[in-house]
Amino acid sequence: MKTSLGAKTLAMPTPVWCVGAYDTDGRPNAMTIAWGGICCSKPPMLAVALRAATYTHGCVAARGAFTVSVPSAHHVAAVDFLGLASGRDMDKFAAAGLTPARAEFVDAPYIAEFPMVIECRLAQTVELGLHTQFIGEIVDVKIEAGLLDDAGHPSLPGVDPLVFSPGSRGYYRIGESAGAAFSCGRPLLKK
Amino acid sequence: MKTSLGAKTLAMPTPVWCVGAYDTDGRPNAMTIAWGGICCSKPPMLAVALRAATYTHGCVAARGAFTVSVPSAHHVAAVDFLGLASGRDMDKFAAAGLTPARAEFVDAPYIAEFPMVIECRLAQTVELGLHTQFIGEIVDVKIEAGLLDDAGHPSLPGVDPLVFSPGSRGYYRIGESAGAAFSCGRPLLKK
Repeated sequence: MKTSLGAKTLAMPTPVWCVGAYDTDGRPNAMTIAWGGICCSKPPMLAVALRAATYTHGCVAARGAFTVSVPSAHHVAAVDFLGLASGRDMDKFAAAGLTPARAEFVDAPYIAEFPMVIECRLAQTVELGLHTQFIGEIVDVKIEAGLLDDAGHPSLPGVDPLVFSPGSRGYYRIGESAGAAFSCGRPLLKK
Repeated sequence: MKTSLGAKTLAMPTPVWCVGAYDTDGRPNAMTIAWGGICCSKPPMLAVALRAATYTHGCVAARGAFTVSVPSAHHVAAVDFLGLASGRDMDKFAAAGLTPARAEFVDAPYIAEFPMVIECRLAQTVELGLHTQFIGEIVDVKIEAGLLDDAGHPSLPGVDPLVFSPGSRGYYRIGESAGAAFSCGRPLLKK
């Protein structure tokens, strides 16, 4: 028996990503988000939703570019800090002990210590209400060389990313494999 | 040292959700997606990206409503099947042994067996390329009553949702808690 919780942002799981952008003075900034996801395969695109009140929002809009740095679970305190502090008040990279690296293809910084980065060129801006959705075209993905699996794909257990649980506001690690996609449901096709 | 993988949809983690919609004849349909996420807090909104070629795409566009059913890990075979088969060819609910339930507030079906459902009214349609992004206003969230934590929030370990790893195309369960959000990074604020 299901119980109603009302009109709330209680979807799960949601990703834990750090959006990086330079401000108009060229200072690197980054903030943690959980409202985002891939939104197109061709061209490859990814959406992140930011409140207009955040410093990063203005940076992304002004420079037309952003990165998504994917943290590992052991970065959780720095990740949480990047969601609490504002780049308006401080150098968040320095305060978190993180190193800004210039993206190769877009005008935005990423977090050198995090294992994976997605470089995005701002393609569309969708005003939705409290949040603005920035849709970025993915122009490159970079990962630590040791975190590829035998087939050359990013290893999810290797990256050890976080997920966020809205409502309870908790971070979680990824657990065990649950099956191969486009494969484990095939027996049902033959019924 | 990071290595470049090119312009690909390799963000992680991504959610595993089943989008439900009625077709123009009122038949329930559902398909599995991993391209989606929350995109606004006020009004609460969620985005799902579907290829125009899918049967569900036409259903959502025609009826102006959809649901997101959140599966548990033990539903993985049915979930994968719902991403492989098309509602154009068969009754996917019947083939997967799943029960369509009519949403309370929107003109769309959800999967009764799955622990959580998000009812969405189609608010905006954003054409991006291969995928169309359907932005839904969340009008209700329902969850099995036994899956709330002590504070009344949806329990992520209770729901036991799946994540998808693009590239390796694997499903994974959620693992251990990694910390409390808006909390574990506070010590860095005082530095």
